[in-house]
Amino acid sequence: MSEDRPLASFDEVRAVLAEFPGPDQAAATAAAAREGQLTKPAGALGRLEELAAWLATWQGRHPPRIERAQTAVFAGNHGVAAQGVSAYPAEVTQQMVANFLAGGAAVNQLCKVADSGLRVYELGLEQPTEDFSQAPAMDEAGCAGAIAYGMMAVEGGLDVIALGEMGIANTTSAAALCQALYGGSAADWVGRGTGVDDAGLDRKTQVIEAAVAKHRAAMTDPLEVLRHLGGFELAAILGAVLAARMARTPVLLDGYACTAAAAVLHALDPHALDHCLIAHVSVEPGHRRLLERLDKKPLLDFGLRLGEASGAVLAIPLLKAACACHGDMATFAEASVSGPA
Amino acid sequence: MSEDRPLASFDEVRAVLAEFPGPDQAAATAAAAREGQLTKPAGALGRLEELAAWLATWQGRHPPRIERAQTAVFAGNHGVAAQGVSAYPAEVTQQMVANFLAGGAAVNQLCKVADSGLRVYELGLEQPTEDFSQAPAMDEAGCAGAIAYGMMAVEGGLDVIALGEMGIANTTSAAALCQALYGGSAADWVGRGTGVDDAGLDRKTQVIEAAVAKHRAAMTDPLEVLRHLGGFELAAILGAVLAARMARTPVLLDGYACTAAAAVLHALDPHALDHCLIAHVSVEPGHRRLLERLDKKPLLDFGLRLGEASGAVLAIPLLKAACACHGDMATFAEASVSGPA
Repeated sequence: MSEDRPLASFDEVRAVLAEFPGPDQAAATAAAAREGQLTKPAGALGRLEELAAWLATWQGRHPPRIERAQTAVFAGNHGVAAQGVSAYPAEVTQQMVANFLAGGAAVNQLCKVADSGLRVYELGLEQPTEDFSQAPAMDEAGCAGAIAYGMMAVEGGLDVIALGEMGIANTTSAAALCQALYGGSAADWVGRGTGVDDAGLDRKTQVIEAAVAKHRAAMTDPLEVLRHLGGFELAAILGAVLAARMARTPVLLDGYACTAAAAVLHALDPHALDHCLIAHVSVEPGHRRLLERLDKKPLLDFGLRLGEASGAVLAIPLLKAACACHGDMATFAEASVSGPA
Repeated sequence: MSEDRPLASFDEVRAVLAEFPGPDQAAATAAAAREGQLTKPAGALGRLEELAAWLATWQGRHPPRIERAQTAVFAGNHGVAAQGVSAYPAEVTQQMVANFLAGGAAVNQLCKVADSGLRVYELGLEQPTEDFSQAPAMDEAGCAGAIAYGMMAVEGGLDVIALGEMGIANTTSAAALCQALYGGSAADWVGRGTGVDDAGLDRKTQVIEAAVAKHRAAMTDPLEVLRHLGGFELAAILGAVLAARMARTPVLLDGYACTAAAAVLHALDPHALDHCLIAHVSVEPGHRRLLERLDKKPLLDFGLRLGEASGAVLAIPLLKAACACHGDMATFAEASVSGPA
């Protein structure tokens, strides 16, 4: 990270990963000490207490705070959409980006409720990835460039960043990534995405199974898996996760496609996602299976399957609540409340 | 509800229940029609879509909105605390009320995050209920009076009301209510509350088992169950649930004690809680079992066991998110987004 030019190769991505900061133990210790003094039975705020400690640990400060939240939605197009794997035509990616910019999408409304900024990043929508049923989705320079682009989305001074994606056919890419990373059959990882019918689901499953088999020998490491089966917006999400770690910005990951992109990093280093929360578990069946592999417990189980960071943004107020309780509650001493008898 | 004086008898409570308004089908139909036009795959917002439709149905208007949220915390003392069923001494109820009024408790911080008003209602803390291991907790006039007091907490013009309680020993009361309403043994319904040790848990279980047996013959209907085993703050919660239905104000119920109070109404009329959501499932084991009996799915599973409406308030932003998406997203036509191919 000593250079100003964007990453241009996977070796440079690995070099960033090697520099990853670990947890801030001093902040974690300070959080635990304060938590025990607050006017409630020990542990009574459950996951809110865990979240406050986790935020302190990964923001590297105590008390933690969520004042400046940012949401980043990465949009990309997928050559594999030509195989009829989605219920929607590929031009919907561009149309939805216009909808984001006009303020009409779900993520816009959710950002207002959560008081989050919103940035939308287009990854050359007129130039989709290659159709991965025919050829590797990206070359190394294109994939590394998309990672670098995602890294730039992490501004300084953010207290949390919510990540999400828009890309017709990207649950096909997500399922392929998961099959390649974790094994099993395509049927284990596939789902209906935006809502394909039974015939579409069969087609999608076959496309994934065949593509993973076709590229198997060439996918010698997780970044090669991403290059062969991923997409530009998914590579950008991976980049944003990388940059957020370097910036000590905790991350909220959205649904299946977003988590699958992050899982590539986890496959490189099992601690690479320690600064990330899974905001929700999607109804896309592969997502729950993926969360088991990542050993991550989602914050919400709301039956979402929209993407566009919607579930990640929905969870921001939960983090604010954790910080508010941890930072602003009275202690037993301050409030003159008796402890256990 | 045609009289201005408070309720003074259970017959009057039953009379209110008999007047309960049903769902607003016109609002529900309008919500379903709009939902299908919004720029997302059908059903992709999962539970947020259900919540928007539910809010429209029980607010009796379309679109639904959450602009004016109120939180009501009812505090009462329990004679059964003398049996050593809580980890905390009874004076903590009063001390925590002072903490609420001073702004130092969890619920104060959560109300700020959720932009909710907060009112705390004390039910004669210097006069606890009778110790229900010895005598009925309340007489009918006292119980009906507490119900009436709770009804007054529901002001006009609220878009949602979050209900909660504070009362040392009230998880003992909650478990006793559940055993009396649903059967089983005390062990099926008891938990550690604020954190009793093993000996305290045994004592609590025995107190409940004996009290339910002692009063069994006299508990001829659910309101008599409440009178024998409940508490003033729990009766007040039941009253607030009643008044909210009449006012078309949807309700967020907090944890075990709060839900047990509402369950008394459900036992009188299985549709009596149709305007109520369960905000979260508590770690108190009886709560999950109770939600199965009520056939209610909680919004959050956050390992909370604090009470004081904390979980209910935590869920308010989720309702705001549902309203914002439903009310403010663009339609496919407005945004010129293509439908399924």
